[in-house]
Amino acid sequence: MNYREVSLTKHGEWKGKIETVCRVPVDSREALSLAYTPGVAEPCMAIHADVEKSFELTRRWNTVPVITDGTAVLGLGDIGPEAGMPVMEGKCALFKAFGNVDAYPICLRTKDTEEIIRTIKVMAGSFGGINLEDISAPRCFEIETRLKDELDIPVFHDDQHGTAIVSAAALLNALKLAGKKTDEIKLVINGAGAAGIAIAKFLLKLGVKNIVMCDLKGVVCKGNEWLNSAQKEVAEITNLQHIKGGLADAMKGADAFIGVSGPHCVTKDMVRSMADKPILFTCANPVPEIEPSDAKEAGAFIVGTGSSEHPNQINNVLVFPGLFRGALDVRARTVNTEMMIAAARGIAGCVAEGELSPDYILPYAYDKNAHRAVAKAVADAAVKTGVSKIRK
Amino acid sequence: MNYREVSLTKHGEWKGKIETVCRVPVDSREALSLAYTPGVAEPCMAIHADVEKSFELTRRWNTVPVITDGTAVLGLGDIGPEAGMPVMEGKCALFKAFGNVDAYPICLRTKDTEEIIRTIKVMAGSFGGINLEDISAPRCFEIETRLKDELDIPVFHDDQHGTAIVSAAALLNALKLAGKKTDEIKLVINGAGAAGIAIAKFLLKLGVKNIVMCDLKGVVCKGNEWLNSAQKEVAEITNLQHIKGGLADAMKGADAFIGVSGPHCVTKDMVRSMADKPILFTCANPVPEIEPSDAKEAGAFIVGTGSSEHPNQINNVLVFPGLFRGALDVRARTVNTEMMIAAARGIAGCVAEGELSPDYILPYAYDKNAHRAVAKAVADAAVKTGVSKIRK
Repeated sequence: MNYREVSLTKHGEWKGKIETVCRVPVDSREALSLAYTPGVAEPCMAIHADVEKSFELTRRWNTVPVITDGTAVLGLGDIGPEAGMPVMEGKCALFKAFGNVDAYPICLRTKDTEEIIRTIKVMAGSFGGINLEDISAPRCFEIETRLKDELDIPVFHDDQHGTAIVSAAALLNALKLAGKKTDEIKLVINGAGAAGIAIAKFLLKLGVKNIVMCDLKGVVCKGNEWLNSAQKEVAEITNLQHIKGGLADAMKGADAFIGVSGPHCVTKDMVRSMADKPILFTCANPVPEIEPSDAKEAGAFIVGTGSSEHPNQINNVLVFPGLFRGALDVRARTVNTEMMIAAARGIAGCVAEGELSPDYILPYAYDKNAHRAVAKAVADAAVKTGVSKIRK
Repeated sequence: MNYREVSLTKHGEWKGKIETVCRVPVDSREALSLAYTPGVAEPCMAIHADVEKSFELTRRWNTVPVITDGTAVLGLGDIGPEAGMPVMEGKCALFKAFGNVDAYPICLRTKDTEEIIRTIKVMAGSFGGINLEDISAPRCFEIETRLKDELDIPVFHDDQHGTAIVSAAALLNALKLAGKKTDEIKLVINGAGAAGIAIAKFLLKLGVKNIVMCDLKGVVCKGNEWLNSAQKEVAEITNLQHIKGGLADAMKGADAFIGVSGPHCVTKDMVRSMADKPILFTCANPVPEIEPSDAKEAGAFIVGTGSSEHPNQINNVLVFPGLFRGALDVRARTVNTEMMIAAARGIAGCVAEGELSPDYILPYAYDKNAHRAVAKAVADAAVKTGVSKIRK
C-alpha cells in the first residue's frame, strides 16, 4: 500500500482523528442544573478553596496537551504549526487508544523559547501533564528543563525521552540476543540533535559506557568548535577515546548503531566494519539511514527502523501512552529518570524470553499489554521515588 | 433537590464532564501507518502547502477552546483559573451535546490583557473559533475587540453576546405577548458590566430606542465621573432623557427590566412603579435581582431568570452551541451583528405563536430543535453578509 497517498485520502474522510464527547446527561432541566448552573458553583468553590481538588472534580487528572511549534515535525522539519497538526492529532488518538489519556493537540504560532515556555505555564492549570512534541533543538532542551523546574505536573518531551526509552528497550533485548553486556559494548549514535543526545544520556544511565556520537559535521568530540551547548555537554561524557573523523571512523568495531539522523547516510561498508553480530536501529523517518535489506546483506544481526513496514519498529508509541497513564494514575509531579528506566525495562520485558528473536525484539506498538506494563512500571517507580502526590 | 450539594457529589463521581475519544482505527500496523507514521506526512505537507487545508484534514474545522482567566466565573467573581474549570467543562459538554462542537476548556493563569491576547493568538492555528468566557470587564472588551481584529476565525465572548442574544430573543417574545413595540418601550438594564453593556448595544441595534442603564453607583448618565471607558461609550447612546439617581428612579414607568447584576436589588415597589404589563428578566446567578414570586405579587406580567428552577430561563446555553455550529459550518471568518441578530430571531421563532405564554417565552435550553434553528439562521446570515470562507 502507498501509505502516504492513502493517508491523505483517509485524512480527508476522517476530518479529524480525535473528538470531544460529553460524559454527563444534559437532556433535562435537572441535568443542566447539576452539570451547569446553578449546581456547578459548588465544585468551583471547592476548587477555589483547595486547588488540588481540580484533579478530583474536573477532567484535569486525565488531560495532557500535545504541544508543538511545528519546527521539527517527523523528518519534515520546520513546516509550521498548522501543518504539524495531523501528527499531533495522531498522537492524541494514540494517547487515548493505548493509554486512555485525554490529549488535546495545541500547535503554537511562535518559535520564541520564552514565549513557548510562558504560554505553556499560563495554560498548565488546565492539565494533568504536558507532552512537548516536535520542537527543534536546542530550544527544546531549555523549554523542557524550565517547564520541569517551574511546574508541578509531569513534563515530557517525547522526541527526546520517548525515543530514548524505546531505543533503550530495543537495545536491552538486542544485546540479550547477541549475548553482549551493556557496559562492554561500543555504541554509535548518529544525529546529535534532541533525540540523539537524549538517547546518549539515557543509555549512559542504563549502564552503557562507550558511546560515540556523530552529526553531519562528524564525530562529536570534546573541543570541536562547531558544537552547540547541548552537544558540548554530551561531548564531556561520550567518546572518551577521542575518536575523530566521520561516521565511517566511528562505526569501526561498533557493536550497535542508533540512527536518528537522515536518509541513507550509512553504507554497507560501514556495517561490515562493525563488530560481530552488529545491531542497527535506523530510526530516520520516512527514509532510514540504510535500507534494512542492505544492512542485512552487509551482515547486520538485528535491524530496527522507525517504520511500521519493517520488523522491529523502534516506535515511541510504545512509550508515551503508558508513561503518562502511569504518571497520571499516581499524580506524579514530574517524570524522573527512574520512571523512564522503569518504562524501558517494562517494554523490554514484554517480549518473553522464548519469543525473542532478531526479528522480534519489541512488542508491537498496538499491543495493549505492553502499554499496561509501561503504565504499571512507571506508576510504581513514581511512588517508590516519592514523586507521587497520592498517598496510598 | 439541593442542586449545589448534589452537584458536588456528582462532579466527584464524574471526574470530568468531557473526554477525548479516538475516531480512527489504530489497532494494526496498517492502521498505524495511515493515522500516524509514515502516512501522516502527506496531510502534513498538504497543509504546509496550503494552510487552509487544516480545516479539511484535521479536526480544526470543529474545534473551539472555551477560554477563561477565572476572573468573573458565574456570579462567583475572581475565583482563579482552576476553580473556573467546572464551568468551562460544563460549557464544553453543552457545546458537544447541543452543537456537536468539539470544545476544549483552557483556563489561563494570567490576568494581563496583553498576555491573554497573545496566548490566544499563539494558539489560534489549532482552532476553528474562539469562545471567551468569564473574563471580567473592562479587560474582556479589549481582549475580544483585538482578537476579532487580528484573527480570521470567529471570536465570541459569550458573557457579552450570548447573554445579549438570548435576552433579546426573550424580549422579542415578551413584547409580542404584552402587545408592545420595541421602538416604543422604555427598558432598564441593571448592571453596567460586560453583559449589561453588550445587551444595551445589541438591543439598540434591534430597534429599542429608550434604554436606561444602572450600576451600583446609580443611573449611567453622560458626564458621570465614575464611568469607565466602556460605560462612557454606552452613556452616549442610552439614557437620552438624562435621568439621574438610582435604580428606583430609572424603573419608574419602565416597560421592561433586564438585570445582570446582583441579588435582591429590585424591590416590589420598583416593580409597582413600572408601566403596565411589566417584563422582568432577573438574570443574576445564583440569586436573582428579585424573587420571581415577589415580582409576580408586585404585578409583573412576565418574569424570566437565569436559573433553570423557574419558568423562562434566560440562558445563553440557547446561543453558543448553535451559533458556533452555524459559524463553523460555513467557515465564517468572524461573528458579525447580522449573525447575532439572526440567532436572536431564530431562538424567538422557536416558540410557536400558539404556545407563547407569560410562562413560556423561550425554548428550553435542552431543545435540540432550537439549537438547530440557531445554527441554520447564523450560517445563512454569515453567507449572506459575505463572511463565509466556503464558496457555495
